[in-house]
Amino acid sequence: MITKIAIQGILGSFHHQVVNEYFDANVTIDECLSFDELIDSLKSGKTDQAVMAIENSIAGPIIPNYALIDKNNLHIIGEHYLSIHQNLMALKGQKIEDIKEVHSHPMALLQCMDYLKQFPDIKLVEDKDTAETARRIEKNQLKGIAAIGSKTAAEMYGLEILAPEIQTIKNNMTRFVIINRENHFVPENEINRASIKFELDHKRGSLAAVLNVMSDCKLNLTKIQSLPKIETPWKYSFFVDVTFEKYEDYTKAKSLLQIMAEYFKVLGEYKDTKPLSQS
Amino acid sequence: MITKIAIQGILGSFHHQVVNEYFDANVTIDECLSFDELIDSLKSGKTDQAVMAIENSIAGPIIPNYALIDKNNLHIIGEHYLSIHQNLMALKGQKIEDIKEVHSHPMALLQCMDYLKQFPDIKLVEDKDTAETARRIEKNQLKGIAAIGSKTAAEMYGLEILAPEIQTIKNNMTRFVIINRENHFVPENEINRASIKFELDHKRGSLAAVLNVMSDCKLNLTKIQSLPKIETPWKYSFFVDVTFEKYEDYTKAKSLLQIMAEYFKVLGEYKDTKPLSQS
Repeated sequence: MITKIAIQGILGSFHHQVVNEYFDANVTIDECLSFDELIDSLKSGKTDQAVMAIENSIAGPIIPNYALIDKNNLHIIGEHYLSIHQNLMALKGQKIEDIKEVHSHPMALLQCMDYLKQFPDIKLVEDKDTAETARRIEKNQLKGIAAIGSKTAAEMYGLEILAPEIQTIKNNMTRFVIINRENHFVPENEINRASIKFELDHKRGSLAAVLNVMSDCKLNLTKIQSLPKIETPWKYSFFVDVTFEKYEDYTKAKSLLQIMAEYFKVLGEYKDTKPLSQS
Repeated sequence: MITKIAIQGILGSFHHQVVNEYFDANVTIDECLSFDELIDSLKSGKTDQAVMAIENSIAGPIIPNYALIDKNNLHIIGEHYLSIHQNLMALKGQKIEDIKEVHSHPMALLQCMDYLKQFPDIKLVEDKDTAETARRIEKNQLKGIAAIGSKTAAEMYGLEILAPEIQTIKNNMTRFVIINRENHFVPENEINRASIKFELDHKRGSLAAVLNVMSDCKLNLTKIQSLPKIETPWKYSFFVDVTFEKYEDYTKAKSLLQIMAEYFKVLGEYKDTKPLSQS
């Protein structure tokens, strides 16, 4: 059976690379030029699943994407970590001296800032997608413009790599989530990670009380962030990721939190695939 | 005495508006086209203070800006809340039917997405700064292009407002911080808010223990976020904002946290100016 998958960006993007590594070969790709488009593709049934960047080891969580999953009542059913390698690329024959502008996604520009600062005369231009820029340079035979992106993008669009591995932090990982309209794609005994959202009344110590319960139930907190409640400025919800060994421990915590929190919601229950040792 | 202030963006930007509301009249403005430039302006001594957006009631914290303050060992010495009103503007005489592209900062585009979705044929182009786009439209007499920005920007650059108040959420506030090379600009008895950063060992319950201490010391937590530790993927620091009534309560908590945390740092101690009632 062919699985239809929505990605942010085009073929050759990091999202595409995640599809290649996470799914088996029987997939078709729907290229979406924004995260909103990606959500529409999944919600409308045009695709079966979507891949969405959710957190970067340098820039932190991609907060609007959490909000999109939440607002559209979608479910996180899996995750994948990708090590990000950025390369400067341009038309074949171009040299770094020929480059007047570098176009790329703001995140990619940020990740390569130390390298780019060596060339104060090169103008940095924010663009929607790393791979799309590479494709445009090739299609329109744009001289003087370089893109930043994956080796795959360079190969796919026939560009030459002027400088490899230009990201400042060599150990740069991005976490992607696999999202779906439905929940429960993972057998209970394999679930060891959950993403939850809750709201608390603003009594002092209410968050501490919730975290105490989680700790008592043997949940490890791997991420927490308070987020403003839309339409209620400066009232906060909390997005929390936890890992656990036993699903029963998690369900126990869940029952308690449902009582303690003003609002409680599960964004996803899935299998932790973190590739690195975590303490 | 004239205070030299660095802002992100140009005259007519929201950062400029904050300067007008927060400082008295004796200021000069250094227009910086990126947050990096803003930091350089302050660090080099070219300016005395800088104004930086740090949190939006819709999109949440602007995480890279926290990291910039932290990495450069700068201090938050004040804060200001601005109610954001976005307007669609173009050259005088242009009608909405004439507009082919809307250029603006990604955050502004996001804030106006519901309005913009009515015009699927209008191309959205991400730009560096809301006011800069307005200035460019005027300077180059660009037809067919609209900007999104403040009323002040429209007036300053002689553009006509095609549609006022186009932000989706009418109650849209952005929090700005005033940053400085030095700390301690506020008398101790006026300090009722602090921004701190700490790192914890990854024992289960360590964050709960810290929050318990804060709660016992009568600190109110107004924001928390875990952030990846650079160069150590998936090890987290915590950025926390607290408010308190008595400075002694805060110093007591601070002494305890310095012992409990692996690393502890104060980003700023200042006066809460939150304009809305908080529970």
